[in-house]
Amino acid sequence: MRCSVIRVPHRSPDDVELLQHNVENGTIHPADVIAVLGKTEGNGCVNDFTRGYAVRSLNSFFQKFVGEAASEISYVMSGGTEGILSPHFTVISKSLVAESEINSKSQVGEKSLAIGIAKTPVFKPEELGRLSQVKEVAKAVQKAIEDAKIEDVADVHFVQIKCPLLTADAIFDAKQRGQSVVTEETYKSMGYSRGASALGVAIALKEVWEEDITNEDICHSWEKYSTVASTSAGSELEYCEVIVFGNSVHVEGPFFIAHDVMKDAIDGEALRRILHDHPEAAVVQVLAKAEADPSGFIREHRHTMLDDSDINHTRHARAVVGGVLASVCGDPMIYVSGGAEHQGPAGGGPVAIIFERRG
Amino acid sequence: MRCSVIRVPHRSPDDVELLQHNVENGTIHPADVIAVLGKTEGNGCVNDFTRGYAVRSLNSFFQKFVGEAASEISYVMSGGTEGILSPHFTVISKSLVAESEINSKSQVGEKSLAIGIAKTPVFKPEELGRLSQVKEVAKAVQKAIEDAKIEDVADVHFVQIKCPLLTADAIFDAKQRGQSVVTEETYKSMGYSRGASALGVAIALKEVWEEDITNEDICHSWEKYSTVASTSAGSELEYCEVIVFGNSVHVEGPFFIAHDVMKDAIDGEALRRILHDHPEAAVVQVLAKAEADPSGFIREHRHTMLDDSDINHTRHARAVVGGVLASVCGDPMIYVSGGAEHQGPAGGGPVAIIFERRG
Amino acid sequence: MRCSVIRVPHRSPDDVELLQHNVENGTIHPADVIAVLGKTEGNGCVNDFTRGYAVRSLNSFFQKFVGEAASEISYVMSGGTEGILSPHFTVISKSLVAESEINSKSQVGEKSLAIGIAKTPVFKPEELGRLSQVKEVAKAVQKAIEDAKIEDVADVHFVQIKCPLLTADAIFDAKQRGQSVVTEETYKSMGYSRGASALGVAIALKEVWEEDITNEDICHSWEKYSTVASTSAGSELEYCEVIVFGNSVHVEGPFFIAHDVMKDAIDGEALRRILHDHPEAAVVQVLAKAEADPSGFIREHRHTMLDDSDINHTRHARAVVGGVLASVCGDPMIYVSGGAEHQGPAGGGPVAIIFERRG
Amino acid sequence: MRCSVIRVPHRSPDDVELLQHNVENGTIHPADVIAVLGKTEGNGCVNDFTRGYAVRSLNSFFQKFVGEAASEISYVMSGGTEGILSPHFTVISKSLVAESEINSKSQVGEKSLAIGIAKTPVFKPEELGRLSQVKEVAKAVQKAIEDAKIEDVADVHFVQIKCPLLTADAIFDAKQRGQSVVTEETYKSMGYSRGASALGVAIALKEVWEEDITNEDICHSWEKYSTVASTSAGSELEYCEVIVFGNSVHVEGPFFIAHDVMKDAIDGEALRRILHDHPEAAVVQVLAKAEADPSGFIREHRHTMLDDSDINHTRHARAVVGGVLASVCGDPMIYVSGGAEHQGPAGGGPVAIIFERRG
Repeated sequence: MRCSVIRVPHRSPDDVELLQHNVENGTIHPADVIAVLGKTEGNGCVNDFTRGYAVRSLNSFFQKFVGEAASEISYVMSGGTEGILSPHFTVISKSLVAESEINSKSQVGEKSLAIGIAKTPVFKPEELGRLSQVKEVAKAVQKAIEDAKIEDVADVHFVQIKCPLLTADAIFDAKQRGQSVVTEETYKSMGYSRGASALGVAIALKEVWEEDITNEDICHSWEKYSTVASTSAGSELEYCEVIVFGNSVHVEGPFFIAHDVMKDAIDGEALRRILHDHPEAAVVQVLAKAEADPSGFIREHRHTMLDDSDINHTRHARAVVGGVLASVCGDPMIYVSGGAEHQGPAGGGPVAIIFERRG
Repeated sequence: MRCSVIRVPHRSPDDVELLQHNVENGTIHPADVIAVLGKTEGNGCVNDFTRGYAVRSLNSFFQKFVGEAASEISYVMSGGTEGILSPHFTVISKSLVAESEINSKSQVGEKSLAIGIAKTPVFKPEELGRLSQVKEVAKAVQKAIEDAKIEDVADVHFVQIKCPLLTADAIFDAKQRGQSVVTEETYKSMGYSRGASALGVAIALKEVWEEDITNEDICHSWEKYSTVASTSAGSELEYCEVIVFGNSVHVEGPFFIAHDVMKDAIDGEALRRILHDHPEAAVVQVLAKAEADPSGFIREHRHTMLDDSDINHTRHARAVVGGVLASVCGDPMIYVSGGAEHQGPAGGGPVAIIFERRG
Repeated sequence: MRCSVIRVPHRSPDDVELLQHNVENGTIHPADVIAVLGKTEGNGCVNDFTRGYAVRSLNSFFQKFVGEAASEISYVMSGGTEGILSPHFTVISKSLVAESEINSKSQVGEKSLAIGIAKTPVFKPEELGRLSQVKEVAKAVQKAIEDAKIEDVADVHFVQIKCPLLTADAIFDAKQRGQSVVTEETYKSMGYSRGASALGVAIALKEVWEEDITNEDICHSWEKYSTVASTSAGSELEYCEVIVFGNSVHVEGPFFIAHDVMKDAIDGEALRRILHDHPEAAVVQVLAKAEADPSGFIREHRHTMLDDSDINHTRHARAVVGGVLASVCGDPMIYVSGGAEHQGPAGGGPVAIIFERRG
Repeated sequence: MRCSVIRVPHRSPDDVELLQHNVENGTIHPADVIAVLGKTEGNGCVNDFTRGYAVRSLNSFFQKFVGEAASEISYVMSGGTEGILSPHFTVISKSLVAESEINSKSQVGEKSLAIGIAKTPVFKPEELGRLSQVKEVAKAVQKAIEDAKIEDVADVHFVQIKCPLLTADAIFDAKQRGQSVVTEETYKSMGYSRGASALGVAIALKEVWEEDITNEDICHSWEKYSTVASTSAGSELEYCEVIVFGNSVHVEGPFFIAHDVMKDAIDGEALRRILHDHPEAAVVQVLAKAEADPSGFIREHRHTMLDDSDINHTRHARAVVGGVLASVCGDPMIYVSGGAEHQGPAGGGPVAIIFERRG
């Protein structure tokens, strides 16, 4: 088995022209595609329809090649390309490899990029941002690790989750049924859903213990977190999509992944360390999370992101972290997603690089 | 003579509590203050009243100590603390030094930080963004260089200008008098005023020749620029304030300044080069300009800053450049101002460091 | 022939569930649909992808019923449902009527709602906002009037046009080819395109004369306008779509249209007058244009819409006019589109009601 | 005693030029001024510094005339002039009247406009949005009613309160001291503070009973409300300012006040009813509250204000209600404040007119 990753820019959420070129020239085989991660140019908040628009366009595109199987592909769109972030899709493929084709770049016993996928059941509005979401996500992450054929949780380097949020409609529905929701602010619900999902990852990876998590911890006990979770909320789905990225000896090919943790939004050193440890490999994609430090301070100086009623703090944070990481790797077409609740330490977040071994 | 620079954080545009502490403990002498550069937490665009609010508060504050002389101080507020940028004032002082006090850190013949100030006449709305503004700024810059006792234009490392913009009121006034204005978009007028001011600096520093500049070049011929101009537009004044920063043998003291040019918004290397050249000195303040590349691309990838109708591109650009520079110098309380028309190459901008020699 | 109009709410730009119900219960016949006007919940400005998303969803929806003919339908989406405006589609149909079915509500010689459609050729970026756009629109409006079988221009009561805008991409393209564009501000280009389209309507309806219009008049000579033009710019097309609404003796059925002109954004009396003149008929839909008075004043008091760098003035104006008209007709699911350059007097705009005669 | 009200436009939050004219021509007597209500052109949300800026400017202005007594004046600034709302100050004065001056327009036994003022103690962050705030406000309202010499709560027609909000700083402070706050979202805290203040009014006016209110009711039990409360949150104060407007036989003069309740944001009929009941009097000022219906629907149609992550719903609501009321009274320089939690029914709000009897 082999996993591969390729980045494709788009000019609008429905632009699949360059995907088409990649299919035509054989760099993307639609039948092998298992997931597409995207950065789309909406506000990344509640009323961001660029995510759904891109999903619809991608689904139509792949349908032309693989029919109904297109809806089995995991589409994870993260809205918000503030600052220099450049809109694009990251296409992830998985294929069986004949003995004869085994790539000379990977050696026997060497671990290569392994990717696994899973979904949770659909959530009711009242389950979002609460323990029931945490637990279902933990289960789905375990399934995805198995799907990826990763044996050791230490080999998991990035877990991307797309999770739902509460819209005004959903809140109204829950209230009609006499149920309470975790928050009645739609924008705030995104944070709760991201936080609960991240704690689910932390449990699956044994970074925290299920019995140590209560409903009250979600979006409060920032010392409980996963160093590899990356969760992103959107209104275009009602369950969680889980994509696990790691390395495994059961997979071959030139790709592998490594990660580190940014201690705050300007900690470019975290990315430098990963690059420094792998001087021989080419960077294929950078994946990271961004957030405004919830203390209101960064390096002991006040920031204004949390008090800004014109621009939501996730938008500020993506602009900063996107700029910082792009300045280190020299490339603005990277995946930086906002809202890092329980993803890395408060104010910081995970960062990973997918590498390709050179010849 | 000695020039000195100190940064003071504030918690809101009218907060002078820490300024008060600095006066009380003797680190700021109100009678010596010649200018205050500020980063205030407004939108940095047309309807940003945090700049005027801060100026009013600073003026009242200094009036308590020096009376009417407070209005002689040059108050240059740059709005917009997007991302991690931390609101603060940079207080600039100039004092005569008795022979006996000469600081041991500066040696005979060594150049030290020299600062000069000047103002243009008041502009009419129809003059803004046009050659008449360019020429008046060029004259004021020359006066400020003399005021700073800088002998060689090569010793000028940063020229900060605060310039007016066109409000709906001003446009209406011009039209009533039968005059045309350079643009009827108030937000766009900020760019024209910044651009004309920057070309004025370029002429004064012989980076371009006055006879080579026409009205049509302003905000169009991006290849004509100054590498040290930093211009900032606001509705709180109707003339230009000019502050020249350079080094001079006629000034003494531990401070000096150096600069470089960012080629684009993620060019953190420009700041690294300055730091690398001065390993022995402590960073007192970083000064820089930020802009969204007018081509719509950065490092050959599309950015979305210019097409964003929710957040103006200057706000995006400040968030990025602030983050990039803070990640290099480790400090978010720096001066990054938006809109770098004719200030450095298209998409890039000047960056300077004020250093203090160590013991 | 008969024209009919029905409003259908949607819950997101891609929601066609209620359209489906209407098709199933026979109130909409897909083969008769000639146009869909929509209000979608984006920002209504440059980066509003809800318009394209809705068009794509509508096109897919109708394709299921009529195949390729779905792309012949005129989809005119107006972004921006600020304030109380409620997202919806207005579905417009045209059908041949057998003699036997002639509706008793319309009498011999009575004029009924007549709708005609036409398109201009594709425009190059450098043609937008200039005379070439004005002239092509004038021709297309004439064609649409003929298509509607309207004999007298006095019987035209609303002309809806969807026109292109300049994106950063398009501007870059024009510059590469050495062509100038009317403005390099993408948001501002929307105004020029709307203005040029409206002047095209004015010429076709003999409200102004072609020889009296120059390039300089566009977005400057506000005294030249059409009282029935409603133009809306978007990035999802490169030509203009024209839909003419009027009354004609050659069409039968219970629907008819009437219009008036709002003198400013709070002139609810214009709508009251139309209602007052037709006490016997039921309101099917209200159509109107909204804009911030370009003088910066309304009823001699200053407004702040033009100086607001956080919210574009078209968004403010839609919120106001939507509220004012909804308070008069008691219904927030109306069509109010922003940016009324050369559409009604400066600061005001056309307003029309489609009525259905009662039994 | 006589109370009087006059409106004065301003061109920016610090513009007092027209106030100066009014003092010079004798229409405002600084020594009689007890309160200034203002509409300032900020975002009306957390980081709106136009309120504080205006307060500072007004305070300096009145200081010139009355010295330290200027700080006894109640300055209540409401941010947000979305749509057609025109920035202005409403200056409220109270004076003793000599027998000989008694205005012929008011007759013996007739009730005239009576205004009273009071303040609560300073609140700690943890008290905001909770019962302790409710109770203190109720006490202050009672004091203000006495101060106004109003005998019957039925004669109270408008109670304006300016209350604090939670900033990131304040939340941090509470947490440092081990205290919880009602919400950690600064924008949301504005709603809690407004809601608690409104319930305080409702208790003082016997619209609800203190024993029926729990912490959980605040911002949840919308059926509990005051029909005359108008509360406005801002970061420029830490206690509540209360201004009671009513009619009293103990006051004389040509002014009086009347009120009604808007059932939703487009209920212009409420204002028409008041006007209809007082055909003989001139409108001096309109005072109203605006909010986005928390159900997400208005007149059974979905609105998008609560799901909009680019523009806060209070901003949308002010634009709508401002437009609706201005279209009825023909004047955009009115006082419409956003966020009507427990102020009128859900989605609606109080509206009042201050009238002057004609000659």
